[in-house]
Parts: sequence; structure tokens; C-alpha cells
Amino acid sequence: MKLIRFGAPGAEKPGVVLDEQYYDVSPFVADYDEAFFAGSGIEQLADVVAANKESLQPVGKEVRLGAPIARPSKIVCIGLNYTDHAKETGATLPSEPVVFMKATTALCGPNDDTVIPRNSEKTDWEVELAVVIGKRASYVEEAEAMEYIAGYCLHNDLSERAFQLERQGTWDKGKGCDTFAPLGPWLATKDEVADVHNLRLWLTLNGEKMQDGNTANLVFNIPHIISYVSQFMTLLPGDVISTGTPAGVGLGMNPQVYLKPGDVVELGIDGLGTSRQQVVAYGQ
Amino acid sequence: MKLIRFGAPGAEKPGVVLDEQYYDVSPFVADYDEAFFAGSGIEQLADVVAANKESLQPVGKEVRLGAPIARPSKIVCIGLNYTDHAKETGATLPSEPVVFMKATTALCGPNDDTVIPRNSEKTDWEVELAVVIGKRASYVEEAEAMEYIAGYCLHNDLSERAFQLERQGTWDKGKGCDTFAPLGPWLATKDEVADVHNLRLWLTLNGEKMQDGNTANLVFNIPHIISYVSQFMTLLPGDVISTGTPAGVGLGMNPQVYLKPGDVVELGIDGLGTSRQQVVAYGQ
Repeated sequence: MKLIRFGAPGAEKPGVVLDEQYYDVSPFVADYDEAFFAGSGIEQLADVVAANKESLQPVGKEVRLGAPIARPSKIVCIGLNYTDHAKETGATLPSEPVVFMKATTALCGPNDDTVIPRNSEKTDWEVELAVVIGKRASYVEEAEAMEYIAGYCLHNDLSERAFQLERQGTWDKGKGCDTFAPLGPWLATKDEVADVHNLRLWLTLNGEKMQDGNTANLVFNIPHIISYVSQFMTLLPGDVISTGTPAGVGLGMNPQVYLKPGDVVELGIDGLGTSRQQVVAYGQ
Repeated sequence: MKLIRFGAPGAEKPGVVLDEQYYDVSPFVADYDEAFFAGSGIEQLADVVAANKESLQPVGKEVRLGAPIARPSKIVCIGLNYTDHAKETGATLPSEPVVFMKATTALCGPNDDTVIPRNSEKTDWEVELAVVIGKRASYVEEAEAMEYIAGYCLHNDLSERAFQLERQGTWDKGKGCDTFAPLGPWLATKDEVADVHNLRLWLTLNGEKMQDGNTANLVFNIPHIISYVSQFMTLLPGDVISTGTPAGVGLGMNPQVYLKPGDVVELGIDGLGTSRQQVVAYGQ
């Protein structure tokens, strides 16, 4: 299944995508949140959709999409997880996963505007595969880690490089600004993705290809990442792990290129759809 | 007012402390969560308590206390915010606040056991003043920042130093382990604290004084911190900012001292009560 959330910001309803058409499932499901994923929500939703396929209400494709999951307890991100990206940033390849966190207030819909924060000069893009956790995960073995996945989403891990790297402290300062986590268009349940380690992911800026990678080139693969993170913190159903970005970010260019109002960023991953963000100044 | 949450983990009810006695306010309030703080919950609760003082049900003091707030959207922490602590860790005093994040799954009650994570050898303590946000805060001016505070809590910002400093990536890896954020015993509403910049805070290990500081010595004061963090992310009602620890952590000792099963940590801040954690091994 492909799960969407649609409607005005903060008032999204749950839906599904069937044959490229959106349908409202809010009569059957409250929201795609921790309780949904914890309580076999995906399996129950599949049954409901199968039993009610003829009577589901369609939703026009012009509707605004929100992030396909309601606010998770946390967004954990893996840094420098593609060799070519680590190289372009001048970083040494880490011997174990680099972990940082993104404020969940950064979450927004896949096609919402990207707001450049006040006093920002270095807002950058990062196309990433995001994993959504399906059940409580603590000290998970790598061999069993895939069982803890609900599904996958497209994610733009927007990053303010000066805030992240030049303003003291950890990377978190440059990762959690409002609108810095456009997620979706949909959550593809795990069964929809035949091989999560062979997905092309790409990003364009104003129509020009900036990133073009493949999850085959992840330094640390998905089960390793889930197992690893679960050694340091408990992952809850609905939590997000974003798995890192391939080469082609603005920070890695010579000269560096950063987002400015009027820019349009488009990105996609095989099977996970595409998203499009218009860049605007704060308060615009 | 002093707000508490009492009962079994995950099933806590809201209460208040009046004349050192606990009272149940769950007939009037769902929980101390984002909706509570956003909706003038403190003012309404004060009215309810005043109007029903004679009929409130007392709760025995032997009850387990949970964290005095329900799970916030985020716990933001300020690092190296006391000169003496920065010095003991060998760090240079930062020119602007150091920011990192603690997984909210680390939250626990003030007297719950501290669980040493698997493969941990360097679990350390940090007594801190935590600020609870009362209303949505984005780009807040320092002069107005105090208006965004709901109240204050005692917090032990437990930290696994090897995870934090020796395992690649940001500090977050060593800050968010389960039970690493005992909060409380209570949330003191802002009006309860005459001068938040003149509170003694202390911590003992097995009865021996390890930390003994005063918030007068914060490098960056409370309004500065709130204003600063709100430049990088939106703070929601109920969110927590932990403001840093004074000298006397295990990392700063020679030789270094870390927690082991059987240890007892006690801590307190003027007006915010005391807490006590027994240290146990994982799975014990």
C-alpha cells in the first residue's frame, strides 16, 4: 500500500493511493501515528481497503499532501553514508554510522514551500531514503532488523550549512529549521519495495540534475543502521530514520551553491514518488 | 503551582502538590501535554484547584512519580554552559550556545532506576535546570523570552561519554539512551520561582557531594537560550530546554568516575525538589 495524508497543515486526514488515485480512509483510521503502527494498523488498513474498495471516497489530486506520517517521537539521521558524499564534503568516511537528530517540528508536506530561515546564507538540499519504524526497537539484531520496518518515504534532509558546521555545537542546529523535512508524497509499505538496496534517488535544482545516486551505494545498509541506532535509543513505531544522501549537495560544489528564493527543488526515489519544493524567504 | 504526574509508567495521571501533599487532578485535566500548555492549561488548572480544594483526592506519597510532563516534541540541551564545567572537560568556552538533542524516549520519572546501557563503561551524571516552554516560540526576542516559559524542573542529563565523544558523529548518540532523562519530581510554574538565575543545584553520588553550583553562573542565561534556540527551530508548548550542568561530572575527574550498578545518585535544585536514581545494569 501507499499511505498519504491530505488536507490543510495540522488537519491532515489519512488516505491511500490506489491505481494512482487518492482515496480517503479517515472513516476507518484516525491517523498514521505511533498507535497506528504499533497496533498492526497497516494489516488492518489493508483488510479495510480490500473490503471497501468500491465505496472509498476519491480525493482530487490537486489536494495538498502532508507528511505521510503524523508527528513521530523522533527523526534520527545518518550522516556521511554514501562514499561520494563524504568525499565531496571533505569528511573522512566514518568507521561507524554518524548519528544526529532533526527536530520533528521541521516536518512538512512533500510539496510545501521550503522557507529559508532568517539570517541563513547556506540552505542546502539532500535527497534521502527515509525508513519508518513499524514496532518498538531496542537492541535489535541486524538479522532481524528488517522486521522492524513499516515502510519507506522520500525525504529532503534540508540543511543550513553555516548553522550546522560554523555555529558551535552539534549538527542539529542546522537540521531542524521549520520546513527542513519535506516527507513523502507517500509511505510505501515494506512489501511495495522489492529491493530497498537498489533504488535510484535523484534531485534537481531548477531543472538541473544535482544528485543522482543509488541506495546500492550506502556505506551502512538499512538493517545495520536500524540495529546500530537501536543500541543507543529505543525507536518507537512511526519513528523515522533518514539514511543519508549521495553526492551532489551545494556544500560539495566549487564554488558552493545554496538555495535562494524562487528556486525549485524536485526529487524522487524509485517507487517512492517525487516531491517539489518552491524556495521562499522567511515571512514571504 | 507544582505539577506532578503519578502512577505506573505509561499510565501516569496528572496531579498537584499542595502543602507538600499530592492530589489527583485527573477529573479536571487529561494530561500535562502540548495541548494543556498551549490552551492556558496552567491558568485553568489554578482556577479548578482553587474552586475544588476541599474535594481533591489525596494521593499517597509512596506513589511512583513519572516525568511531570507528557512526552514533549523535543528535548533541546545546552552544552558547556557553566564555565567551571567547560574547563573540567577540557573544552573551550563556546562563543554561542552549544545545542544538542536528547531522544524523548529517554524521559523517565525522577526516582526511576538509571539503566546502564549495554556495552557502556562511561555513564555519567549532570544535574541541570530544565525549562518547560509554555507557548509556541519562533524567532523570540530575548526581552520577551521569559513570557514563553511555563515552568521549571529538575533534570539529570545522563550521558554515556564514550557514546557521546568516542563513537563518531554528534553528541546525541550518548544522550538519548532509555532512562537518561529523569525529570521532576514536579514542574514548578514560573510564578513559583522568584529568581531563576539564583538557584543552587547539587548532586551526590552514594552520599558524596559531586556537583554544587548555582544558576547565577550560567554562561548564557535563560532568556538568551530561549531566544537563541528559537532562531533554529520552533519550540512547541511542553518542549524542554535543559540548560547545562556545573562542574563535578565523572568525565572531569582524575581518574574519571563512572556509574556502576548499585550506585545511588541524588540531586536537587532550590524550589524544584530532589530526585534519586538507583543505578542498575541493563536487564537487571
